Amino acid sequence: MNERRNRAWRLAARPSGAIKESDFRLVEEAVPAPQPGEALVRTIYLSLDPTNRIWMSDVDQYMPPVQLGDVMRGGTLGVVEQSHDPALKPGDIVQGMWGWQDYACVASSGLRNRIAAGDATPLTAHMSVLGGTGLTAYFGLLDHGQPKAGETVVVSAAAGAVGSIVGQIAKLQGCRVVGIAGSDDKCRWLTTELGFDAAINYRKENVLEALRRHCPQGIDVDFENVGGETLDAVLALVNNYSRIVLCGLIATYNDDVKVAGPARFANILMKRVKVQGFIVTDFLKRFPEGRAQLAQWLNEGKLKYQVDVVRGLENAPKAVGKLFTGENKGKLLVQVSDEPPR
Amino acid sequence: MNERRNRAWRLAARPSGAIKESDFRLVEEAVPAPQPGEALVRTIYLSLDPTNRIWMSDVDQYMPPVQLGDVMRGGTLGVVEQSHDPALKPGDIVQGMWGWQDYACVASSGLRNRIAAGDATPLTAHMSVLGGTGLTAYFGLLDHGQPKAGETVVVSAAAGAVGSIVGQIAKLQGCRVVGIAGSDDKCRWLTTELGFDAAINYRKENVLEALRRHCPQGIDVDFENVGGETLDAVLALVNNYSRIVLCGLIATYNDDVKVAGPARFANILMKRVKVQGFIVTDFLKRFPEGRAQLAQWLNEGKLKYQVDVVRGLENAPKAVGKLFTGENKGKLLVQVSDEPPR
Repeated sequence: MNERRNRAWRLAARPSGAIKESDFRLVEEAVPAPQPGEALVRTIYLSLDPTNRIWMSDVDQYMPPVQLGDVMRGGTLGVVEQSHDPALKPGDIVQGMWGWQDYACVASSGLRNRIAAGDATPLTAHMSVLGGTGLTAYFGLLDHGQPKAGETVVVSAAAGAVGSIVGQIAKLQGCRVVGIAGSDDKCRWLTTELGFDAAINYRKENVLEALRRHCPQGIDVDFENVGGETLDAVLALVNNYSRIVLCGLIATYNDDVKVAGPARFANILMKRVKVQGFIVTDFLKRFPEGRAQLAQWLNEGKLKYQVDVVRGLENAPKAVGKLFTGENKGKLLVQVSDEPPR
Repeated sequence: MNERRNRAWRLAARPSGAIKESDFRLVEEAVPAPQPGEALVRTIYLSLDPTNRIWMSDVDQYMPPVQLGDVMRGGTLGVVEQSHDPALKPGDIVQGMWGWQDYACVASSGLRNRIAAGDATPLTAHMSVLGGTGLTAYFGLLDHGQPKAGETVVVSAAAGAVGSIVGQIAKLQGCRVVGIAGSDDKCRWLTTELGFDAAINYRKENVLEALRRHCPQGIDVDFENVGGETLDAVLALVNNYSRIVLCGLIATYNDDVKVAGPARFANILMKRVKVQGFIVTDFLKRFPEGRAQLAQWLNEGKLKYQVDVVRGLENAPKAVGKLFTGENKGKLLVQVSDEPPR
């Protein structure tokens, strides 16, 4: 019998407004023993994402909501400690969705990715630029946004895990890139480190006026992570045949009451805009292609990424709130246990 | 010198709320003499369309607004009376956009279509099912909506010139078709004459509840002519990967204040919906293809159409209001002068 303890954050309540720590309950139980066909995985990194807020609610959504009492859902990376699955062996580093807990029993068929032996890329890169958020940027921008050289691309939540990669990929396509973020520090990072042509601090500037100034040729692609007034400002400046990749609406996730859609909705008609709702898991079969391209750009020094690592599973409920207050920059991760030597 | 008089409705004021007769001014002047390269055309039919309201306003729109003092813009069909354009000869029946007037001098290069000699199709068909509204239905539904057999298609303003053709084309694709219209008479027409599977009278029924009942498999394609609450109800029931062809937003054209977008906007994200703004003139180069297919269906008895013909150019300003009150059924036309013998 396994005597180690598994800590798991289970959903205790559906949040009203901002996520509170009391919406979760930390439960300790024995580490489960893997059944035939399963491996025991120890969590190293846990991904925290704005979409966690959606999963916690019971609004109509793109996956079943997390049920009350269930372990909170989340992207994870971990190391195999014990295996009864012939496809997995101790020491293998794998990625999956086993959620907010120290350990889990998984079958190889339920995993998302395995880090190749000899891969020297930092594991945090696999949880950011090469992981779900990098893939979201890659498929959302290129497949749905279809940016062409010379076009103007606007990215909201531009200093976030997705937005920061979107902007850099758009630059690689030869576009003019304007980011919208929540602090001068973030804006400086976008323009001086990541190569954005301009960045707008939405807390200090009128977004519409600033967009008008920074997008003299109008907007051809909007990678929308925020919604609300940000999207409305974009709609004032969209060009004919522009594309809005609707990837997130973080401005409204905490609203208990349904908020209205953008007031300039009619511009979608007038400018023949395509608005495409987008969830990265729809591209699951093409993840290997996306990872390969992102890894190549990363290795060539063409993509930079930043991670914001919070230590300790016990801090996950507090840390997730940072995504909604604008406190974090880059990909927010919880380090649940130490990385193994590689 | 030509002694006949040309009456022309010129835009006198930008409307506030519903269109009023005083927004136009009827001006009488001499019929102009065609210059070299031009022909004099006598208007037979004038098309009245919801988009007239947009052109009269100065909101940001898909074409330049009509300028105050200019002849009101409108789709037209007429007969050549005199020609100094070698490509046109007296008796030719042509279609164009010479607007709300008895006569105009046009060049063949500025025309939209010429009715072939020997064509026995009623001229009103060329101004409806084979004209701009039929083409709007054809390209919007098939190119942007991409309906597949077995899918559910919802059409708003379904008894209108566009909606009634959309629904019939969707039936030809093997879809389940549900129309939304404004009277029991219109609903009966849709189901008994045009083959719609169901029709909802939005003045008597709760649209969301009725859609839920008539779309047990959810909604795959929405051909949206109305917007507002109708669109919001549709968004409650859209399936994953559904398509919303945003062709019109007649519910809001008369609003002076910007109205909010649909409250269920977030469902575009959750259900990965594509919302495609659409103006038929973007398909100008493919009009011959569209006309040929529509004419074939019409000749095979697979498409029915209805026209609502108001007699007399002097009645155009009053008649256009019918589009916004729901008084008319099918394509609204003004007969400006008699058809020639054919």
